[in-house]
Amino acid sequence: MAFAGTALPFDDIRELARSMPALDANAVAGVKQRDGQLTKPPGSLGRLETIVEWLAAVQATASPTVSRPLVAIFAGNHGVVARGVSPYPQEVTRQMLENFAAGGAAINQICSTFDIGLKVFDLALDIPTGDITCEAALDEKACAATMAFGMEAVSGGIDLLALGEMGIGNTTIAAAIYHALYGGEAAHWVGRGTGVDDAGLARKIAAVSAAVEFHRSHLKDSLEVLRRLGGREIAAMAGAILAARSQRVPVVLDGYVVCAAAAILHAMDPTLLDHCVAGHVSAEGAHGDVLVRLGKKPLLDLNMRLGEASGAALAISLIKAALACHTGMATFAQAGVTDKA
Amino acid sequence: MAFAGTALPFDDIRELARSMPALDANAVAGVKQRDGQLTKPPGSLGRLETIVEWLAAVQATASPTVSRPLVAIFAGNHGVVARGVSPYPQEVTRQMLENFAAGGAAINQICSTFDIGLKVFDLALDIPTGDITCEAALDEKACAATMAFGMEAVSGGIDLLALGEMGIGNTTIAAAIYHALYGGEAAHWVGRGTGVDDAGLARKIAAVSAAVEFHRSHLKDSLEVLRRLGGREIAAMAGAILAARSQRVPVVLDGYVVCAAAAILHAMDPTLLDHCVAGHVSAEGAHGDVLVRLGKKPLLDLNMRLGEASGAALAISLIKAALACHTGMATFAQAGVTDKA
Repeated sequence: MAFAGTALPFDDIRELARSMPALDANAVAGVKQRDGQLTKPPGSLGRLETIVEWLAAVQATASPTVSRPLVAIFAGNHGVVARGVSPYPQEVTRQMLENFAAGGAAINQICSTFDIGLKVFDLALDIPTGDITCEAALDEKACAATMAFGMEAVSGGIDLLALGEMGIGNTTIAAAIYHALYGGEAAHWVGRGTGVDDAGLARKIAAVSAAVEFHRSHLKDSLEVLRRLGGREIAAMAGAILAARSQRVPVVLDGYVVCAAAAILHAMDPTLLDHCVAGHVSAEGAHGDVLVRLGKKPLLDLNMRLGEASGAALAISLIKAALACHTGMATFAQAGVTDKA
Repeated sequence: MAFAGTALPFDDIRELARSMPALDANAVAGVKQRDGQLTKPPGSLGRLETIVEWLAAVQATASPTVSRPLVAIFAGNHGVVARGVSPYPQEVTRQMLENFAAGGAAINQICSTFDIGLKVFDLALDIPTGDITCEAALDEKACAATMAFGMEAVSGGIDLLALGEMGIGNTTIAAAIYHALYGGEAAHWVGRGTGVDDAGLARKIAAVSAAVEFHRSHLKDSLEVLRRLGGREIAAMAGAILAARSQRVPVVLDGYVVCAAAAILHAMDPTLLDHCVAGHVSAEGAHGDVLVRLGKKPLLDLNMRLGEASGAALAISLIKAALACHTGMATFAQAGVTDKA
């Protein structure tokens, strides 16, 4: 996406958000028609059936595919770590990217198990965003440019996108976004992230509270929330979600941090997430509460809180199986099985 | 297993149940020790971590495998279908077995997606069990022999067993077992199975109630519950679970009907299910309540109610991924990632 020279950078984002394709009801009808003929009682595959309907609606075909699924991980660093919000040093963000490249992380094993592509996007790790407790994370131009960078993840003919992230300190960032969007007590939104102790948890709550207080008069607009309280990985994921919506690519959301990007878009227009499914509910913070607000029922609930798309990638296995059932099962007529009286 | 000529057939089953190997705490300690070194915050993979500990405890090794997983489906027919408890005719049981053989059922697609072996066991389909509302399903010899037959599923070096079933009418059978074991109202345990209408549901409830009433004075012993109210597939699955426990093969339970076999054993001795995990919670009847009584938290909750091991086989994908993470991830030292302060 190109930015016009004179307009405000966010104007192009808003324009894109207003021009999304409709979901395809005919494709859903086609899926339901075939499903009714398959050798099983109607409805007995439960969520596996509705997953295929969702794929069809987004891809606009009664024969959806999950042949080129991709896990895209976005990584950023955060000035707020100066507030002592993580037990791990900031250098771990880059070290983990090297671990992804070497195949040593959890997400590598999950992608390998289910034959899922993996791409990792490094977002200026050497230039942490501003400390949100006392300044904006990004200026508008940088935020919009990072969103545009994230849009590039939707390329290469992928037909399913799972989003993940890596960034020491980014559960604090996500909590600040939720607190700004949804109000309530800062403590409600804050979890232990990678495992802070009680003192660290208190510092996280204080940082989230201070950040929302500092920016309070500028938080009516969710893109402003994003640039002031967000991080680069969250901006990039918001861009990727938008691009996927525009290009009819279904998206699997991961956990607490990924959903902060989704929440920014949801606050703009809930239909911007019509192509998204929640891969899992995380053990982190108030992720379950966030999913309720986003109107997304998670596919998995395994007490995970790792990030790096681990929950979303696991959910892809279910989506693949759902589609395999729909595509590969015999009909009552083909199998010579007597249908219900 | 060979039966002594003079002893009662169930005596051998009871003897086997008393001689099970202990789970291996050292193997669990070994898994935990490695897990603590992997490049992730401690505990962040949640249930994926405890799954590997469970595999290790059952297999008695800190290096468990899921290289030869097997789905075993047992099929039987039931005299109680004469009471109008299913909208499908009894011939569908055999037709579905032919569908399994031809690769046209849901379970074929799921096994193919995740590279899981599949075996189907036909249990005298032409000789339905007795109508439980007015006679015993099986005599003791036939019940014990069917259990012994089920034990044969644990062979060929399999290292994980998922159990499934097919049998028109068998949700009624399962409901009768739960009602006998757990009491309460018959209606509490009865669901719509393959999709009975309101009149069919009333007939199911009446049949379950009548069956438990008819056999009431003989239901103190759970093997008696099995032979009087059970079906051949349920007896065979109970045998398979026992054999797996004895041979240190972890078992993934499927839904409402499979858990009736597990419930029979649990009533004998809860530790007989120490090697079992609940693959999913079904949408059928009171399966969630049954899982609570068995002390099993399901891996999946996808509103499925198909049977044929579909939920258990999906859960195997999670177990494979869990083990892949444990086995394949780099340690902090290997990856050069800075550990928590």
